[in-house]
Amino acid sequence: MTAPVGRIALIGTGLIGGSWALALRAAGLVSGPIAGCGRSPENLETARERGIIDTFTTDAREAVAGAELVILAVPLGAIGPVFGRMRDTLEPHAIITDVGSAKQGVMADARRMLGDAAERFVPGHPVAGNERTGAEAAFPELFRNRQVILTPDDITAGWASDRVQALWEAVGARVVRMTAAHHDDVLAATSHLPHMLAYSLVDTLSRWSDRDEVFAYAAGGFRDFTRIASSDPEMWRDICAANRDALLTALDRYMADLGELRGAIHAGDTARLEEVFVNARAARDRFLAMLES
Amino acid sequence: MTAPVGRIALIGTGLIGGSWALALRAAGLVSGPIAGCGRSPENLETARERGIIDTFTTDAREAVAGAELVILAVPLGAIGPVFGRMRDTLEPHAIITDVGSAKQGVMADARRMLGDAAERFVPGHPVAGNERTGAEAAFPELFRNRQVILTPDDITAGWASDRVQALWEAVGARVVRMTAAHHDDVLAATSHLPHMLAYSLVDTLSRWSDRDEVFAYAAGGFRDFTRIASSDPEMWRDICAANRDALLTALDRYMADLGELRGAIHAGDTARLEEVFVNARAARDRFLAMLES
Repeated sequence: MTAPVGRIALIGTGLIGGSWALALRAAGLVSGPIAGCGRSPENLETARERGIIDTFTTDAREAVAGAELVILAVPLGAIGPVFGRMRDTLEPHAIITDVGSAKQGVMADARRMLGDAAERFVPGHPVAGNERTGAEAAFPELFRNRQVILTPDDITAGWASDRVQALWEAVGARVVRMTAAHHDDVLAATSHLPHMLAYSLVDTLSRWSDRDEVFAYAAGGFRDFTRIASSDPEMWRDICAANRDALLTALDRYMADLGELRGAIHAGDTARLEEVFVNARAARDRFLAMLES
Repeated sequence: MTAPVGRIALIGTGLIGGSWALALRAAGLVSGPIAGCGRSPENLETARERGIIDTFTTDAREAVAGAELVILAVPLGAIGPVFGRMRDTLEPHAIITDVGSAKQGVMADARRMLGDAAERFVPGHPVAGNERTGAEAAFPELFRNRQVILTPDDITAGWASDRVQALWEAVGARVVRMTAAHHDDVLAATSHLPHMLAYSLVDTLSRWSDRDEVFAYAAGGFRDFTRIASSDPEMWRDICAANRDALLTALDRYMADLGELRGAIHAGDTARLEEVFVNARAARDRFLAMLES
């Protein structure tokens, strides 16, 4: 078991940041106050009422003063500016970590904006979340048995990575480490690409001429897509920018395969269609077996 | 309330056919025996053990003899051949209905294969189901509050449509009527297209070089896709053939929109990306409001 953390600065008090704070408290790992920071005083007030944070400010410079651990849980595009804003008031031994869904850009921001403190920045990504947003949606069990990926760099201090890993494991997460580049490729395929497909489908159908009817007869398939496509738009805008290259590679590969499937439908190649569908079901079975193991 | 049905022939005793039979029994609407028919003696035995059917045969000709109601719940490609096989043993006043996911082809099959009995064929499609298959998966509540679409034609007898509608409403379904062509367009968009996208994604990722890792880090998005892509391959093969034109139209429209989204990602057009994502979330909210109303 790792030691409790003293003062924490939580920059961004939404679903992910709020849930980690609640989970750390529930695990008895918070011995000092948690200072919240965000753009919306309303959401900060909710976070305070829900016991996520003790005090709050809208200025990151103020929030990090005295903090032993700084958690950034803001959209990817906000991380660089927050680094710049908080650099001068960071404690000399503070550990900084984030929860962003793409990691190469964040590490580049840290090197550019944090100076020597970049060595104490541990890039992290909890592969968890749902379509809800805000402090209202936070709950302490969000990370239980979920994967958290850390992408420490050659400048990252080992003691800082180990401490962040211990704080994730203490709330029930399974931590793995990999390079930021590998993380970005894998997540482009498993998360960013599916979200783009869902967003695009809902967009297409919402501009259909019989839109209301299309929605009225939405069967299982489409209903799941609309749920995926209701995630935070600002977060996804920033993911598209931050993981552009890996996402484009995944998207191009997908579009080529979809074009091939279209060809089989057009040609009435039922043998090929059945092969694709049988393979997909087999992949699902392997996936479920992996989840259970 | 509609009167109970005497002898029923259930051709296909899987999730949909089995669930309708169980639901009709639960509603007290079955006064005679249900004769099951299918290809797999094993599945037929399961259906008998679960009380879905009373007797069974693998010959549709035999199953329909004496039946007042004939329910076809087989993959679309099997409907034409079954019509041909059973035509000569159909009772003169038997009502025939189906549960297929595309309706124009089925009506064409009926006109070609059923002779005068085509007037007593009521094409139907319960917009319900899940990724499970077989008699084992059937349950009587499957259609409660779900949409059932009937697509009677100008030759369809009104009394036959009314009877089938009443039998669906008695098990809790909401019945609407539309033309087969309109049904096929709407379902291509809301159900057939999403399934193709999910199948294609799982296919793409299952051939990824880091396949196991891709599956290991599958976040919410991809997990939902694999579930959609685990539906019955044979059923989907037949849907692609039967609703080819409407599906290709929907797919082309989608691929054009996805190409446009790709262009916005490539160009770093964050304003456009945010617009698409915000619109999709708004569409989801309208959709949920519609479900609640």
